[in-house]
Amino acid sequence: MRAIAINRSVLEMEYAIRGPIPQRAAQLAREGREIIPCNIGNPLALGQQPLTYYRQVLSLLEDPSRIRRERTLLAGGGAPDPDAPDEYTLGTAEDMLQQLKAGTGAYSESQGALFIREAVAAFIDRRDGVSATGQKADPDHIFLTNGASEGVRNVLELLITGPADGIMIPIPQYPLYSATIRRCGGIQVNYYPDEDREWSLTREELERARARAAKQGVRVRALVVINPGNPTGAILDEATQATVVDFAEAHGIAILADEVYQDNVYGGTFVSFAKMVGGRNVPLFSFHSVSKGFFGECGHRGGYMEVRNPPAVEGSSCTLLDVLIKQASVSLCSNTIGQILVGLAVQPPPPGTPPYARFARERECILADLREKAGIIKAAFPRMAGVHCFGRTGAMYLFPRLERLPAGTNDFEYCMALLEETGLCTVNGAGFGQKAGTHHMRIAFLPSQQELSAVLDRWIEFHNRYCTAG
Amino acid sequence: MRAIAINRSVLEMEYAIRGPIPQRAAQLAREGREIIPCNIGNPLALGQQPLTYYRQVLSLLEDPSRIRRERTLLAGGGAPDPDAPDEYTLGTAEDMLQQLKAGTGAYSESQGALFIREAVAAFIDRRDGVSATGQKADPDHIFLTNGASEGVRNVLELLITGPADGIMIPIPQYPLYSATIRRCGGIQVNYYPDEDREWSLTREELERARARAAKQGVRVRALVVINPGNPTGAILDEATQATVVDFAEAHGIAILADEVYQDNVYGGTFVSFAKMVGGRNVPLFSFHSVSKGFFGECGHRGGYMEVRNPPAVEGSSCTLLDVLIKQASVSLCSNTIGQILVGLAVQPPPPGTPPYARFARERECILADLREKAGIIKAAFPRMAGVHCFGRTGAMYLFPRLERLPAGTNDFEYCMALLEETGLCTVNGAGFGQKAGTHHMRIAFLPSQQELSAVLDRWIEFHNRYCTAG
Repeated sequence: MRAIAINRSVLEMEYAIRGPIPQRAAQLAREGREIIPCNIGNPLALGQQPLTYYRQVLSLLEDPSRIRRERTLLAGGGAPDPDAPDEYTLGTAEDMLQQLKAGTGAYSESQGALFIREAVAAFIDRRDGVSATGQKADPDHIFLTNGASEGVRNVLELLITGPADGIMIPIPQYPLYSATIRRCGGIQVNYYPDEDREWSLTREELERARARAAKQGVRVRALVVINPGNPTGAILDEATQATVVDFAEAHGIAILADEVYQDNVYGGTFVSFAKMVGGRNVPLFSFHSVSKGFFGECGHRGGYMEVRNPPAVEGSSCTLLDVLIKQASVSLCSNTIGQILVGLAVQPPPPGTPPYARFARERECILADLREKAGIIKAAFPRMAGVHCFGRTGAMYLFPRLERLPAGTNDFEYCMALLEETGLCTVNGAGFGQKAGTHHMRIAFLPSQQELSAVLDRWIEFHNRYCTAG
Repeated sequence: MRAIAINRSVLEMEYAIRGPIPQRAAQLAREGREIIPCNIGNPLALGQQPLTYYRQVLSLLEDPSRIRRERTLLAGGGAPDPDAPDEYTLGTAEDMLQQLKAGTGAYSESQGALFIREAVAAFIDRRDGVSATGQKADPDHIFLTNGASEGVRNVLELLITGPADGIMIPIPQYPLYSATIRRCGGIQVNYYPDEDREWSLTREELERARARAAKQGVRVRALVVINPGNPTGAILDEATQATVVDFAEAHGIAILADEVYQDNVYGGTFVSFAKMVGGRNVPLFSFHSVSKGFFGECGHRGGYMEVRNPPAVEGSSCTLLDVLIKQASVSLCSNTIGQILVGLAVQPPPPGTPPYARFARERECILADLREKAGIIKAAFPRMAGVHCFGRTGAMYLFPRLERLPAGTNDFEYCMALLEETGLCTVNGAGFGQKAGTHHMRIAFLPSQQELSAVLDRWIEFHNRYCTAG
């Protein structure tokens, strides 16, 4: 058959995370080379262990006959097995089973099981310290999704009505956003957080970006923020967050807040955009996921989107919420195991319950390990010519600036050479976008401390040689 | 905030399956009315039990420490517990765990885990009786997806390049297709299988539909077939399938074959479109799912798409396959539990292995029950004035024609009145599309035989009264 025309938006969409550098790494691995995969946030693929409590509950829900069997074993006495679920864990599974009504194998409501959406709403209120009279989260404004990306795509699909609609995204950004905007036929409107000031933002920069788009006939519909940042790893300061909310309110545009790394905070505190918006009438879509944090359950594809202040829809009797529900219903529902993981993530076992000690130990262990690994890598930067890393560290990434690449070379060539010579696989800054004339790389700090330490010397040696070769 | 404009394609998209009739049913249920939910193919919500073997494996994969624990229990002797996994099942879990490398919690390859795609390819070859020299399925042409609908959406998104691109769909059809075509900004081109001839098709009808579209400036890019049918439940005859392949080949258009009900065949045999296409160069996208068949695992959102003869893409060095891989990579991967269920569904325990007897008994029990329920409902039609049901029964649906509705009424009013009076929830024919001037209803035959038998007398009484009231 002859060549066919296809949707150009999809054809031209780019997605660097699984682009040429990781593809070359996969090839090297097949040839027997040792690869240190710092290119992707896939923690459980790199030795991080899943939390025992979560997995015990999932395991019981998939085979509910085990609840009775495990009770019989518990009652039988004998030496307690540390890997057996305790009575509290059995009870959690039993409660969820009752709430699910038909177990894990039935479609749930399109938005996700109501009892889990209620738990998410309660979590948001606790997290944001909402009093009984404050802006409480509404379970009917929550959507359980296959990871966070499904929600992002649905919202952008709605907000982009044609090729004059723009979405503001930070540069650098997670390429899900640029790819999805392209896919939906909209215009990417770049704004530039100030790297030298810890990736903070000014109102002037946001206005500049919007005005420049307007001059080209592009109407900005929404603004994306990623906090903690991906790829920067930087935690936004509250002044920046307030600036974003003021700007959105002033121009009547929506905020998409990607907060999937909210538990990955090593140098500051996380404040949600829901809290920053408070009682102001700014449409807000917040995203969270079980793939990151200390959960790391990427493969289970669980996430949620919370919608605040959904506007009415022009030329119809609907609000945006109704249309989001219709979108969800065409996909029937997100996977139930992902939904249940979201339910567990927002309801950890309380202190004093039997699974608590182990749960808390596992959680602290993972977070401490991540913090230490970030520290190990950051400590190497002063030993590398012209490498500077800005921002309060969060997420699972560092995004150093490479200031001394030989003339005529770029970060793609650097990262590819680094991979070939040392086995260290990263993603170059251009894959995320960066200010013209600058070069960066993103390092996901997930491999073991031992592996990272071992590769650092080789990296430093490579770097200083590469940067003086010009 | 004022009302905002949104993407009109999504605003105007319709999806009847979760439309006004089921919404009214949900309201009645909340008021305490007994509802017989024949509106949706959600088997495990209606009493069907999941297959023990599948769930035991999933349960072990979510908590791998149990493999050791269960072995210790098996070795300990004592009375065998019929709910405990046997050594074969433990071995299956152990094998899968080894192949997954990092368990269920890590992202897999974007297309899905290779070992599962290999198992799917082997299943397709067995099913289609492909000899070593025939058109073998290629694991690299298989995508593991969140249910079947994700694959459908990705393909339609690619094939629809603008508002002059048409997709041919049968009328009646499953509204995923009309909704997704609308969503992607394309044109729905209707073709009409001949209800009175068991929903078979002629070349003339396909040519008529295409020519009519061409006159309106619409270029047909692909044709959707659903076999066994949804909503008709009808199994296509091979002559119809051959006609579809000839037509697609003659005009250089792709086939989307929705074959998710391939195990639900009660009156004929299933022949895949992959087999019908054989060595001919017709682009084919086939869809399968773990939601239907005897699996019924809707909530787990597992499915696959197989691509044959992917064409080259105009103006690029890619084939369609490359672009599908890029689309998959933006979503990272489908949920791993759904992937594993696909792997289990295509590799049932072989005869002679310990889990086989129970597995075979459970499978036969489910399929026999579905067959009997279809029979119970069909047997009632002759007692209802002007009700005729055509086609060899498959899938989980009957789609009778209502020929004696009172003048001025339609199938929506009928189905709504039926719900109000008897509690029987169905979807009216207009929700799927139907020939102008005809009226139908879709009944999913999933509630228990007891419930169905109990409602049938009320339905017959209602029907004959309703149809003579005009």
